[in-house]
Amino acid sequence: MYMTRTGALPGKGIAVTQVDFDAVRGLIIESLRATSLAPVIDDMSESVGGGKMLRAGLTLKVGAASGTPRDTLLRAAAAIEMVHAASLLHDDVIDVGVLRRGAHSFWKKKSVSGAILLGDLMICRAMQMLDGVENGRLSGLLIRLAGEMCDAEAEQELVARATGKDWEKCVSLARRKTGSLFAFAAVAAGGPDDNRSEAFTEAGYRIGTAYQLADDIMDACGKSAGDGKALGSDARKEKLTSISASGGAVVQIRQCIQDYCTTSVTLLAPWPASQQAWKEYLQTNLSPVIQRFAGEGSP
Amino acid sequence: MYMTRTGALPGKGIAVTQVDFDAVRGLIIESLRATSLAPVIDDMSESVGGGKMLRAGLTLKVGAASGTPRDTLLRAAAAIEMVHAASLLHDDVIDVGVLRRGAHSFWKKKSVSGAILLGDLMICRAMQMLDGVENGRLSGLLIRLAGEMCDAEAEQELVARATGKDWEKCVSLARRKTGSLFAFAAVAAGGPDDNRSEAFTEAGYRIGTAYQLADDIMDACGKSAGDGKALGSDARKEKLTSISASGGAVVQIRQCIQDYCTTSVTLLAPWPASQQAWKEYLQTNLSPVIQRFAGEGSP
Repeated sequence: MYMTRTGALPGKGIAVTQVDFDAVRGLIIESLRATSLAPVIDDMSESVGGGKMLRAGLTLKVGAASGTPRDTLLRAAAAIEMVHAASLLHDDVIDVGVLRRGAHSFWKKKSVSGAILLGDLMICRAMQMLDGVENGRLSGLLIRLAGEMCDAEAEQELVARATGKDWEKCVSLARRKTGSLFAFAAVAAGGPDDNRSEAFTEAGYRIGTAYQLADDIMDACGKSAGDGKALGSDARKEKLTSISASGGAVVQIRQCIQDYCTTSVTLLAPWPASQQAWKEYLQTNLSPVIQRFAGEGSP
Repeated sequence: MYMTRTGALPGKGIAVTQVDFDAVRGLIIESLRATSLAPVIDDMSESVGGGKMLRAGLTLKVGAASGTPRDTLLRAAAAIEMVHAASLLHDDVIDVGVLRRGAHSFWKKKSVSGAILLGDLMICRAMQMLDGVENGRLSGLLIRLAGEMCDAEAEQELVARATGKDWEKCVSLARRKTGSLFAFAAVAAGGPDDNRSEAFTEAGYRIGTAYQLADDIMDACGKSAGDGKALGSDARKEKLTSISASGGAVVQIRQCIQDYCTTSVTLLAPWPASQQAWKEYLQTNLSPVIQRFAGEGSP
């Protein structure tokens, strides 16, 4: 039924169409229209519902193949993208990043104060988006995993510094900072079946870690035009990343990224339909971005 | 039983002792010790578990008189103080406030980035503090009311400005910005009884609004030494507050504060034990602070 509605071609698996992404964006905008910021929503549309929506795409695609109800998937996808947008609003203030998604970042356009407060609001609205979904299971999970993301970000700022070449610590940071929301996207896709939870969570962590490692490469070696955001801030801020931890061993980092992606697929073997959708998500959505960020000669 | 444990004297109602506040602080510190920031917790103790704990005091005092389980009260109190601490961390960045609780504010001591990220982390850890408490009721409530607080703060920054003398709007901002967490403190104190919920919530909103109006007066007329924080930022930022909305009619604002406090007590008439504790809370905890902030000749 879902396939018919989204217009996927037979034999092409579950497609995530523009309609799905628009529905997610619609939920985000609807949530913000219910706040006092309704009069200025047009000024912030790029900051709250734009971008590649990689996390939403994962939830929608793998979730549909796993038989998870569409309403749950849309709400989970909207909540993840809101937490992600909040983290970008704050990151751009922290990294003094003037570009985001090819335009001036929100703090640059409006104010630092506005960026901080809109971010705070979006965290709360994201949690509220999941109110009552799956009897509160997803809300509790997002609180825990968004907390893990914030924890890793705070650690990178207040505790860890690129003083030692600590590869294990840098992977742990990437896993918790970026893997956490991919883990949420995956576990929400898997639905409330406890048997799936562990494998889906771990698979999400792995591709999120891969994505962060690719992002590290882009920040160090890429050109600003490559992804419409400011680059070079990791080195400037002496952050512990895969680049600083490995002494710039980009070839090894690329291998690591490949391994995380490959093993994520293996973990889903007991659920062939979900696994197939996961593979297609990697091929169609995630790998092209990773290739653009970290591929040989690409950045 | 609770009275015996806290050592309240007979006839003196339910006392909130240092032991209770220490237990709340203990929960906050325990929550942060479970994060990556454990090694630097001593650097941030003033920012995460200090202050007057007015909101925690309300929950503890009125909650004990209302028969709400002690564990619920301690967790609710800790969660409120964490959200409040997060909002102060961000407010001090936003208002460029260099003093907080008589010392350098966190961003001044560490970094703007650190203050933003620690605030984000504390919001998530506060929500997690309520995981499983009252079957998720309190977590859902805190998400909604903290969201309301963020909404009002974002509105004050991005939408509302002190261009018109809009008294109604300024009271609405004070109610949502500061009343919201007092409303949570009150409704958590009342326990899961649906009959109490509406009256306790409204009573909380009223004293929180009163407190914000008093804070407006202090910001405009007070001396920095008065409450150990930077003052004068409302006017500097042209914020819509009770001072700008009333054209500095301090006498009328004081009357308003008095009315909110008095009518909050009336609302609790159906629950005499809770009402008595509420009165004592006002007399012992809140009114002295309000008097210090806004009293004639005091600021």
